[in-house]
Amino acid sequence: MLAELGLDSLNSLIEEAIPAAIRDGRPLALRDDVLFTTSSSRVPGEQEALSCIRELADRNEIWRSFIGMGYHGTITPSVILRTVLENPCWYTQYTPYQAEIAQGRLQALLNFQTMIADLTAMPLANASLLDEATAAAEAMSMCATQTNRRAFFVADDCHPQTIGVIETRAKGLGIEVLVGNLAGIDFKSREFAGVLVQYPATDGRVGDHGALAEQAHAAGAMLVVAADPLSLTLLKPPGEWGADIVIGSTQRFGVPMGLGGPHAAYMAVQEKLVRRMPGRLIGVSRDVHGEPALRMAIQTREQHIRRDRATSNICTAQVLLAIIAGFYGVYHGPEGLRNIATRIRGLSCTLAEGLRRLGHVIHEGPFFDTIRVRPKGGVETVLEKLGKAKINVRNFGDGSLGISLDQTVLAEDIRDIWSCFGSEEFEFDAVFSEVDPEYPPSVARESKFMTHPVFHDHRTETTLLRYITELQSRDLSLAHSMIPLGSCTMKLNAASEMLPVTWPEFGAIHPFAPETQWTGYTALFKSLESWLAEITGFDGVSLQPNAGSQGEYAGLMSIKAYHEHRGERNRDVCIIPLSAHGTNPASAVIAGMTVVPVKCTDSGDIDLDDLRARIEANRDRLAAIMITYPSTHGVFETEVRTMCDLVHEAGGMVYMDGANMNAMVGLVRPADLGADVCHLNLHKTFCIPHGGGGPGMGPIGVTKVLQPFLPSHPVIRPIDAGEHAMGPVSAAPYGSPSILPISWMYIAMMGGEGLTRATEIAILNANYMATRLAGHYEILYTNEKGRCAHEFIIDCRAFDKAADIKIDDVAKRLMDYGFHGPTMSWPVPGTLMVEPTESETRAELDRFCDAMISIRAEIQAVEDGSADRENNVLRNSPHCLHAVTGDSWDHPYTREQAAYPAAWLKQQKFWPSVGRIDNPYGDRNLVCSCEGMESYADG
Amino acid sequence: MLAELGLDSLNSLIEEAIPAAIRDGRPLALRDDVLFTTSSSRVPGEQEALSCIRELADRNEIWRSFIGMGYHGTITPSVILRTVLENPCWYTQYTPYQAEIAQGRLQALLNFQTMIADLTAMPLANASLLDEATAAAEAMSMCATQTNRRAFFVADDCHPQTIGVIETRAKGLGIEVLVGNLAGIDFKSREFAGVLVQYPATDGRVGDHGALAEQAHAAGAMLVVAADPLSLTLLKPPGEWGADIVIGSTQRFGVPMGLGGPHAAYMAVQEKLVRRMPGRLIGVSRDVHGEPALRMAIQTREQHIRRDRATSNICTAQVLLAIIAGFYGVYHGPEGLRNIATRIRGLSCTLAEGLRRLGHVIHEGPFFDTIRVRPKGGVETVLEKLGKAKINVRNFGDGSLGISLDQTVLAEDIRDIWSCFGSEEFEFDAVFSEVDPEYPPSVARESKFMTHPVFHDHRTETTLLRYITELQSRDLSLAHSMIPLGSCTMKLNAASEMLPVTWPEFGAIHPFAPETQWTGYTALFKSLESWLAEITGFDGVSLQPNAGSQGEYAGLMSIKAYHEHRGERNRDVCIIPLSAHGTNPASAVIAGMTVVPVKCTDSGDIDLDDLRARIEANRDRLAAIMITYPSTHGVFETEVRTMCDLVHEAGGMVYMDGANMNAMVGLVRPADLGADVCHLNLHKTFCIPHGGGGPGMGPIGVTKVLQPFLPSHPVIRPIDAGEHAMGPVSAAPYGSPSILPISWMYIAMMGGEGLTRATEIAILNANYMATRLAGHYEILYTNEKGRCAHEFIIDCRAFDKAADIKIDDVAKRLMDYGFHGPTMSWPVPGTLMVEPTESETRAELDRFCDAMISIRAEIQAVEDGSADRENNVLRNSPHCLHAVTGDSWDHPYTREQAAYPAAWLKQQKFWPSVGRIDNPYGDRNLVCSCEGMESYADG
Repeated sequence: MLAELGLDSLNSLIEEAIPAAIRDGRPLALRDDVLFTTSSSRVPGEQEALSCIRELADRNEIWRSFIGMGYHGTITPSVILRTVLENPCWYTQYTPYQAEIAQGRLQALLNFQTMIADLTAMPLANASLLDEATAAAEAMSMCATQTNRRAFFVADDCHPQTIGVIETRAKGLGIEVLVGNLAGIDFKSREFAGVLVQYPATDGRVGDHGALAEQAHAAGAMLVVAADPLSLTLLKPPGEWGADIVIGSTQRFGVPMGLGGPHAAYMAVQEKLVRRMPGRLIGVSRDVHGEPALRMAIQTREQHIRRDRATSNICTAQVLLAIIAGFYGVYHGPEGLRNIATRIRGLSCTLAEGLRRLGHVIHEGPFFDTIRVRPKGGVETVLEKLGKAKINVRNFGDGSLGISLDQTVLAEDIRDIWSCFGSEEFEFDAVFSEVDPEYPPSVARESKFMTHPVFHDHRTETTLLRYITELQSRDLSLAHSMIPLGSCTMKLNAASEMLPVTWPEFGAIHPFAPETQWTGYTALFKSLESWLAEITGFDGVSLQPNAGSQGEYAGLMSIKAYHEHRGERNRDVCIIPLSAHGTNPASAVIAGMTVVPVKCTDSGDIDLDDLRARIEANRDRLAAIMITYPSTHGVFETEVRTMCDLVHEAGGMVYMDGANMNAMVGLVRPADLGADVCHLNLHKTFCIPHGGGGPGMGPIGVTKVLQPFLPSHPVIRPIDAGEHAMGPVSAAPYGSPSILPISWMYIAMMGGEGLTRATEIAILNANYMATRLAGHYEILYTNEKGRCAHEFIIDCRAFDKAADIKIDDVAKRLMDYGFHGPTMSWPVPGTLMVEPTESETRAELDRFCDAMISIRAEIQAVEDGSADRENNVLRNSPHCLHAVTGDSWDHPYTREQAAYPAAWLKQQKFWPSVGRIDNPYGDRNLVCSCEGMESYADG
Repeated sequence: MLAELGLDSLNSLIEEAIPAAIRDGRPLALRDDVLFTTSSSRVPGEQEALSCIRELADRNEIWRSFIGMGYHGTITPSVILRTVLENPCWYTQYTPYQAEIAQGRLQALLNFQTMIADLTAMPLANASLLDEATAAAEAMSMCATQTNRRAFFVADDCHPQTIGVIETRAKGLGIEVLVGNLAGIDFKSREFAGVLVQYPATDGRVGDHGALAEQAHAAGAMLVVAADPLSLTLLKPPGEWGADIVIGSTQRFGVPMGLGGPHAAYMAVQEKLVRRMPGRLIGVSRDVHGEPALRMAIQTREQHIRRDRATSNICTAQVLLAIIAGFYGVYHGPEGLRNIATRIRGLSCTLAEGLRRLGHVIHEGPFFDTIRVRPKGGVETVLEKLGKAKINVRNFGDGSLGISLDQTVLAEDIRDIWSCFGSEEFEFDAVFSEVDPEYPPSVARESKFMTHPVFHDHRTETTLLRYITELQSRDLSLAHSMIPLGSCTMKLNAASEMLPVTWPEFGAIHPFAPETQWTGYTALFKSLESWLAEITGFDGVSLQPNAGSQGEYAGLMSIKAYHEHRGERNRDVCIIPLSAHGTNPASAVIAGMTVVPVKCTDSGDIDLDDLRARIEANRDRLAAIMITYPSTHGVFETEVRTMCDLVHEAGGMVYMDGANMNAMVGLVRPADLGADVCHLNLHKTFCIPHGGGGPGMGPIGVTKVLQPFLPSHPVIRPIDAGEHAMGPVSAAPYGSPSILPISWMYIAMMGGEGLTRATEIAILNANYMATRLAGHYEILYTNEKGRCAHEFIIDCRAFDKAADIKIDDVAKRLMDYGFHGPTMSWPVPGTLMVEPTESETRAELDRFCDAMISIRAEIQAVEDGSADRENNVLRNSPHCLHAVTGDSWDHPYTREQAAYPAAWLKQQKFWPSVGRIDNPYGDRNLVCSCEGMESYADG
């Protein structure tokens, strides 16, 4: 490969690709207490690393957790555990931008949306958000934009982390948040944009908010309801009593607690709000053959596309977890969910009745799964006994305790709780048979839900397994071929990294269980933070941001807090290059900053003169610059230090987008370049799989000056929280801990040398491909030595004029060759950005290059006139199975040319399951639940 | 469904299907100590059952086991663990009889065969056998048949379990076995059929047997070598020094020890022996389009087809485990395997050198992974220290110990062993660097192996994952559709049953570790045996037989032992109905019995008059009758008790084939019918997945009189061994323990009522389908009420004459509908036997019936002349993807008619990856390794 580049060593390539001034001679020095006890400095093999992390896992103690607060024990049906969560064909999928080869997960997400819409009795639901607390913050922001008002009321019986995240977010957005008792809400005092209520409330009570909804609406405010979806199988759903937005967590639908994440939050809205809804929305459209086909709907609405006009920065979602929750619903169906809820309700009533008989005081009002009890002799003795029985409950700190039951609870759990509250003995069965779990008509749900056949046809393990397998077969993943997505780093997600994720010692821990119960997790966080700090050169790391977008937001908020702490409230300008990913300006906006764009030169670098001018024009207001390094054009800009210096001189801070960290690990440290903060996409560089569009993790690294401002949490103070910590940015103290073992394992098994070598190979692979393709396509934005970093851009703009071939046609045609298209039209419209990563073999790189070269010849044929300008293999791509096997064939080229343009396809071919999808049609006829699909199929 | 049958209750169906005299009013009473402590009589849910078996698992203690004797610690590469062993798409596959939809596993097995042939340097290897010991017994039998001689010499340094199994088997076959030192072998003393040597020997020495081979051949004897395949990467392979047959275990190629099984044994032979080789052989042939295609070769050679002319009863194999071993070879390649072996060799030399320096005596001669040491102060102190360090070694009982190293061993393990042998300290690295692990040229391997690209192209996790996924996509499994194989019971293999299989607490236990280390296993065996005894009505159960064929053999051998114990050596006749599965007579033959066939009546029942006559004619010699119940025709014969009585009266015993136990559990107990012994296919009725053709388990249940004769074991005496136990029938004391959790979980979660209900539904499903199809096909052999048991037979014989449609055409056409064909031409040629099991929904049963009805119409079209008699959808089936997407189409019917004959196929279709395979071509041009495939692809 080096010979192809005309080089004799990897080192000479790195010298050509990375400016000497940027490179960093210090080798990575990764230290750890656990890992290196047995094997000293040697890098552990897969099995040794697994033994080490097994030891960490064993330090976590699994208690029975009845804490509630939005996190519940749940049973992941084994068939879903094994064939979805533990299956690389599901977890290595990319975000379904190329819908024709993603129909399986799109269907699974449509099921999720349908389930949520039905449960909440709302017309529309999206395909997941990050967690309940950030979903609530998003809802608040929607209310503000929709009503153009800047005050928001939050009921004080919402979960504390939800209130915390809302308050943090409100700071950035300049919204005034009032937290108080709903009874005291005064719609005349302020022009409220909206009101948030928790349903059932954090202490368990099921409120009747119909009147509130009317009042709010009369006052021009919107009603946001945070609802437990399981409770909605029994309780009157918010859509039936006036909610405008319903949000919540689907964690208890089969997703282990995992110390807080990941799991899928949801958002359901009234029709009028659909174009304001953050996150992704799956919709039904049709393909070129008129068959129903799914894709992400109204993407122009998406925040990373709206840049500084965005009202949210949400980009990725929690696809894998939403899929799991959706399959959980498919498996159980409405009857099954209702049975689970009824059983929990019955157990709660039984528990309450027993505690009453023991003389304790139960808070009044209807409840679902959570009771609040005031022990007659005070909480101390009870808590002590509960501790001995290894049972966690919630301590309200006011002499009352909260006990929240879940799907896993058995009669003996109730008996054990009773015995901690007193010695008197009842027969469980006797009490159980005496309580009446029926709800009064005022709160009981009467409407049907989940009536679609999909929630009825797959209720045995055999049928569900086949349904999962069927959907899976429609989706291309890393188990099929390389997914060369520029800026997305689709690298190997090794099985050894994934194994610990589903160990119960990581999964069955409640995020608000006492820290003494999860010292294994803490040790893992410490190692990981120290490794990430060493890799980035920073002093502090916060693991809380549970997505890249959250990392950007948290980083900017820490910069903001820093300026404010220094009395420089005026600093609110954020300079962002025009080439930046759209999420950058969106994040700046929600952090309350004003975006000032800076131009790029023709070579793709930031225009230094323009930067100087922008800084000068905003010198007093300059808060930060956001830069991506290597640049979004895939080049190591030489002047990065100069840029940082200029910003620093003006009193601003440098935010670095870590999306391209896979080009730097071991070679360049962001902190050394002058960055003050940087987020790391653990789902890119550090091997967390993309899961079809989430989960991700976006921890941030910061310099010493910013460390005091790292986020905290109202329930559990994280080890990495700063002295002057901002409020929480995510619902859980450490974001999504249960997937952190993946990155831990990766770094542990690679070691410093291995990581560095991986970076070098990633750069080699990109340059090798760029060189191979250079004779056929124009490669944009290489450096003065003609080298790219870890990705490169293929220019396809000329084909439009020459042959009426759009960039879409090239990407879709790649599907016929068995490949997922590279990143399309970003950062430059009409181009493809290719990132091969270090995980691909030369054979695979060559196969992709061969496909691209072959496609170039197909374009040439159109240019030459030897192929039809309209009816050709590119314009008609992808050629799905139905089309190629159909009786009619109306093309001037053959079926073989359509479907088998390369020799390897005869051996193995991944088939798109639908033809080219008509996006505008779907957006004009918006259908985002399964009903639509059904009627479509009939038509 | 009942309405379709004209019935109003399940009970009335059962009454019609099962004669009242046969039915058994006693409900199943399953007891257990572990399971029912918490939930009393209630049947545990999936999660509770998992908790219970977790508790059992935790009772097993994982020590470091350096015992050797054919079982070694190994590392299952995580990618293989997760995507093969834990993947239902691999483990729920059936035996690849329908090769067009089984090309993936056939390729994986061809890889295995190629690897074995290369490692052993033999021309041909089969696709696995049950274990090394039974493989050795098979080899002995081949020698006897090939040479027509009846004496066999076994080197006394073979593994003791191998010697034990050979001796048991020799008893049945009437072969004289001499066990002795190779130096003392006297080829003049007897006409030896063959000689077995272990290479390296059980105590580790690597012998040079070239001269022995020459002597043996000169004396007309064959040389059988039991060889460790890993050692053959370094040592001169047996094929290069005269072996005629090489056998061994591939357990250490990534398959956990699992207390002894399952894993794949292998057999490689010289060309002349290929048609005598037991087990399955995968070969390359071509399909109707001339493309290379794989299938099982020369099946006429297979033992269950040869009936009483058979020389083996091997039927199933260890496909899943062979596939794992094969992928292990594909992943590591020759260099990787050699590296692993070299490392082990180096560590062994280091260990030996250290022990020498400590003053202990190491046995002389070259070794690979095993050293034999005589501690200077005796074994006691050393053993005590080893015990404290939780290290198992082999105690030869003569003052010497055996220490066998494996892939998992680290330097600290060597240091730990040293410290148990004395306090002097060396630097490991110093000793390691001083030893010379090179072998002398006399034993060192020089020849290349595994040169085929398949062992070089998939050496990264990414590429292996894709290769596994690619092969997987060619195979139909239960994850796609029902596999309605009569007599094979392809039922749900629930994920919750499968999860414990890959827990290390079950996997990482050496079979000869002291029993105190695996009390969890023992508890599991006890429960399982008591449950199987309750289900069958027997008094004792042996878990040792690791396949149905082994169960048959063990059962007949216990009958034989019983007669002999009573002084009735003359009893050697076994009566077997003509309708019996071919394995029955094969088993009888290898148990040393003479088979006397008994006729069936036109209705499919055993002809009572003929039976009486046969008994009368053989009264003094009658040993046993073998019957299948319900009959192989799928009917509960009314006269079964009479038959048993007749046999008992004549002094014979009744062997019942338990293949159809899924029709009986909870309703009929074999013992109550008069059976004395019965084997149970745990891989049929009790949910162990078929794994593409193994593993299976065939424990036997026996009455009190036979209990004393249940098999024992020379190393560990099983809890179920009889007082007058016969020798071992399998290599491991409990057969294949690591898959027994599957059956344990199944029975635990179902409970007695659940199991009974399952049987009833299985019978309902079969009768429902039979009724739906009755208007379209003739259904054979229902009882006088028109009912079948759990399976039924569709007569297709008339179509040959009427439309030139053979039974093959129907089965292959079913593939176009997305189904695996039912059992074909057995027990009646020209018929299909359908067994739906209780696991399928009505929707799936209907879909299959719809396919069959549609096929009937297609046949009708040929009969009517509206379809061509030659060129029609049936004769040309299956229509593979290449054919339907090809440019040319030379059929009078359309592509749509070919590929989408039913509406559901538009939604989801499983595509055969090749067209109809030419079996005779492949048998004429026998190619059984990857080289052939390669040259084929070029041609």
